[in-house]
Parts: sequence; C-alpha cells; structure tokens
Amino acid sequence: MMLRYYELLHDGVLNMTPEIKVVRETPVMALIDADGSLGHAVSVRAMDLAITKAREMGIGGAGVRDSNHFGAAGVYALRAARTGLIGLSTTNAWTRTVAPTRARIGVFGTNPVAIAAPARRNRPFVLDMATSTVSVGKVNVRWLNDQPIPEGWILDEEGGSISDAARAREYIYKREEGGLTPLGGTAGLSSYKGYGLAALVEILAGTLVGGTFTGISRGERNEKGRFNIGHFFMAIDPGAFRESGAFEADLDEMIDVLHGTEPVDPSEPVLVAGDPEWAHMAEREVNGIPIPERLVEGLRVIAEDCGAEFVLDQG
Amino acid sequence: MMLRYYELLHDGVLNMTPEIKVVRETPVMALIDADGSLGHAVSVRAMDLAITKAREMGIGGAGVRDSNHFGAAGVYALRAARTGLIGLSTTNAWTRTVAPTRARIGVFGTNPVAIAAPARRNRPFVLDMATSTVSVGKVNVRWLNDQPIPEGWILDEEGGSISDAARAREYIYKREEGGLTPLGGTAGLSSYKGYGLAALVEILAGTLVGGTFTGISRGERNEKGRFNIGHFFMAIDPGAFRESGAFEADLDEMIDVLHGTEPVDPSEPVLVAGDPEWAHMAEREVNGIPIPERLVEGLRVIAEDCGAEFVLDQG
Repeated sequence: MMLRYYELLHDGVLNMTPEIKVVRETPVMALIDADGSLGHAVSVRAMDLAITKAREMGIGGAGVRDSNHFGAAGVYALRAARTGLIGLSTTNAWTRTVAPTRARIGVFGTNPVAIAAPARRNRPFVLDMATSTVSVGKVNVRWLNDQPIPEGWILDEEGGSISDAARAREYIYKREEGGLTPLGGTAGLSSYKGYGLAALVEILAGTLVGGTFTGISRGERNEKGRFNIGHFFMAIDPGAFRESGAFEADLDEMIDVLHGTEPVDPSEPVLVAGDPEWAHMAEREVNGIPIPERLVEGLRVIAEDCGAEFVLDQG
Repeated sequence: MMLRYYELLHDGVLNMTPEIKVVRETPVMALIDADGSLGHAVSVRAMDLAITKAREMGIGGAGVRDSNHFGAAGVYALRAARTGLIGLSTTNAWTRTVAPTRARIGVFGTNPVAIAAPARRNRPFVLDMATSTVSVGKVNVRWLNDQPIPEGWILDEEGGSISDAARAREYIYKREEGGLTPLGGTAGLSSYKGYGLAALVEILAGTLVGGTFTGISRGERNEKGRFNIGHFFMAIDPGAFRESGAFEADLDEMIDVLHGTEPVDPSEPVLVAGDPEWAHMAEREVNGIPIPERLVEGLRVIAEDCGAEFVLDQG
C-alpha cells in the first residue's frame, strides 16, 4: 500500500503531525480521534486500549474516527489473540466498489472484518475477510496473470457478470456503475447476507464511531480535505467466562476436528481460518517476500523524495 | 418449531423445571447456566442483562450454556435495538448440516447470527442470517413446492451440487456425508468466509460460554442426556460513543441512501436488512399467519396431550 499512501500524502489527505486524542472513555470503551493520520499507529493504540479494558473487565471496545487506511485488519485482531483474548477489528473505506444486492452502483468499500482467537497447541484462529465475494486485490491478480474473472465476482450496471479482467478493473477504478458483489455473489446464493455484513461493518466502524459513510459522501473529502475513515476494535477475555485454559483447550479440540475432517479431495485437506497465511509466512521467512519490480521502483522514488537511504534487501 | 420442541421434551432432552443461574458476572458480562431448559426464556434474560450492563458501562455481553434451541436469533438482537442499543445474538446447534469448504461431511449447524441497530425515522436495521448459504427451511420450501435446488446450496460427498430436493433433504436429515454450503457457496466464490463465520459463531456461542461443539460430540447427547447448546449476546450503547441522537440520525441517512440507490431492475428496489421481515409482519397483522394443516394437527395433538384447551383461531 506504500505507493497509495504516498499519493494520499501528496494529495494532502494525510496529516503527518496529528494530535491523536482519546475523546471519550469509560472502563470498557474508548473513542479516539486520529486527527487525519494514517490508521496503523492509532489502531495499535486503540486495540491495546480494548485489550487492557478487556483484561480488567472481561470485554473492551475502542473506536477510531478521522483516520485513514489501517493496513490489514487481521494484524489488530491477532494482537489480541497473542495476549490470550478474542479480538475483532474492522474498518470502513472511502472507495465505493461494492454494490448492494439489486443495486446498479457501488455504495460500500470492501469493508473488511477480522476475528482472532487463541488456542494452545494450534496457532490462533484468524479470520480476515472482505465482506465482498473477493477483494480488489484478487481481481488485480487475475488481470496481471491474463486470467478471466470467475462468474459472480463483479457485475456491470445491468447486473451481468464481468469476465474480462481489464473491463472489471474499469468498473472498480473508473466507473460508478456496477461493482464487486457482496459475499454470496448472487441473490440466489444469498448475497443479501454479504451486503448485510458490509452494512454491519459500516454501522460499527462508521456510524458508531462518527466515521463518514462513503455512500453518503460519495467518496468526496470533507471540509478538512479528509475522508474521515473509522475503525472499531473489540477484545473479549475468555478468562471472564471460563476456567483458566478451558477456552484454549476447547478451541484446540475444535481446530483438530476441523483439520481431521475428511476432505472431498485427499490432496486438498480441510483448512482452518489463518492456515493459508501461516503457511505463507513460514515460506517467506525462508525465501523472502516477492516484490514486483514496479513496487521496488516506486519505493526507490519515495526514498529519494524523502532523502531516506534505500536499504531494501533484494538478496 | 413447536412439533420439534415437543419431540425433544418426549426424548428427555428438555428440562422443564430448570434452575437457571447466573454463574459468573462482572459489570460488563454475565454467564448463565440454563440447566437444560429451552433457550427462549433464558435468552431474554441474558440479552436483558447485556442491555442493562451496556446502558451503564457502554458495552455488555452475556453467554448462556446448557441450553437448547432459542427460536429466531433476530428477536433478541431486536430487543436491544428497541431500547436504543446495537444488539448481537448468536447460537450454536446440535445438528451437523454444514460442511466446511473442501469437506466431505457436515460439521457445523447453520449457526445463525443476528445484529440489530436503532434508527429514528426508519425501522431498526435487523440482519438475521444463517452462516450457511441458505437455511434448512429454504430447502424444505423448495421440496414442498416441487422445485429443484439451485446450484451451490447443498453438496454431496463428492462435492457435487444436489439439484433434487428430496435427495437434498436426505443429505440434511439422514446422511452424514455432504451438507449445506457455507455462505459463498463454492470455493471460487469464497465459501471459506462463510465457513469462517460459522466457526466464529461456534467460538462465541460454544467455546467462549462452555457450550458443546457438535463437530466434537457428533450430535450425541452428553452424560446428562443433553446437547448443551450455547448462546452469546452483546449490546453496545451508541450514547457512549456519540452525542445523543447522532448515531440514529447517521443510520437513518445510511438507510435512506441504500433505499435510494438505483436498482438494476426498477421493479426490484434495493432493500435494507429487515425490510422483507417488516413487510411480512405488516401483511400478516392484516391477513393472519398461514399455518399448514399438518402443523395445526400437530398442535392439536400437543394440546390434547397436555390437557390444554385448543384455542388456535383459524378465522
């Protein structure tokens, strides 16, 4: 996301000298004003507040308003699971790429939500998902690889599935009409549920914390020149509900049952949320992180612009 | 569900003289032991505890263990929205009808989740959804109407879509193999998300509260002859995060934008979660609730068995 963040900086959207303030607080909740900063640092602070409150009271929640993109939702949820708590993190967005069931235009961002929970023998459960059928990134990967877009990922203004990847990207980046489908894909496969989940994310990360719904602002910046993105975080302490260790033991048993469930195809075992990402991480710790040449060049330009030494190891 | 509840009663699953007890409590959470009762009354009590705590602290949560079927999840979430709070309700199940992505057998119940939020000019937002593509009820309706099952609703043990409704019901009620798909339907349409949401419901309504995961018990009763179903409820007070009335005003504006979004087909306007149910309710308040003859006869038998007068108005 670095290139996009640098654009936002140049466009004056990001405030790089923010006064981040806790504007409301009770023993179980906090609301933080991010003062137009990037979302990452303030989200760590918000999740840590939720974690501290959950440790003391059993449940803790924290909202953030006047923020920007916060990176991967799973990072914050996992932060809670690493300390033994169930974590939830979610954000709204300023893009309008997801069309409600029956709609001719996009109204929501891909409104992601992540939930993580701690086990003992197994790695934490981490579900990190866009509430659309697929993320924008998956469409871009198809385009980069000259592959068609599967039926049900993205629709045109007539409600027809778009199969050409270049055309799909036009509907995502340039045209108001059409859009990514909500999870479910089609009305017949209950896309109203994915649409409802996108709205739920908007209610928690937008309406509840005072963030702007991009469907109302139509993706325009406010009087401060900002998008006013909102986030919402929650932590729950299993120790408030169960004897020490009982939650982790039961979750281990659940994960074992899921891993042990007979698959349709023996070469494709049943996975648990987080498994693909853990496997990626292990592989990349050994082989490094592949970075497209275009990204390396972009990062080099940013480093030069900032007068920072370019130290990216391409070893 | 009355006929099914009566079967459970006869099978000794339900405890009709339960000692329902709050077994853990802090200012923001409570855990209730339902002592094998039906889930409805204890769930009202649990949601009311969550509501009271949220009113005082900003957020409140309540779990229930050793319970049974609690009816429609939306009822409890809506109870919170009726008092001005955001409400969440969810339950696990003893049936094993939903197969994880890639799996050859069913492991989860349809694990529903409901979220409701209060507006002012508009009716509350109420999303009440099974985490499977469709509920068992929708398959039964197709069967009753001699209609085929759409692709992606239910799979056989080879992962193939079942189109014959009678065969689909066999896979739901009689066979361990195959099962309803998680929301998303197919791997290509991200059914891992629906599967992850089913697991999340299990984590909150099962693992967190000490309820039994049917994937572990394989739907068998425990040493007390019970299924030990769990529920989880949460309430959040918008007044803790926003000035009085700001949340409701912003949610009204969001609902208006959604209702005003141009539809693909002008005869099918864009709906908001809860709209179909509000329309049904209005229609039935005028015309009454249609009850199949088989249900009327079943209720008559139950009334006779109990020595209760049969007063059902078939006006």
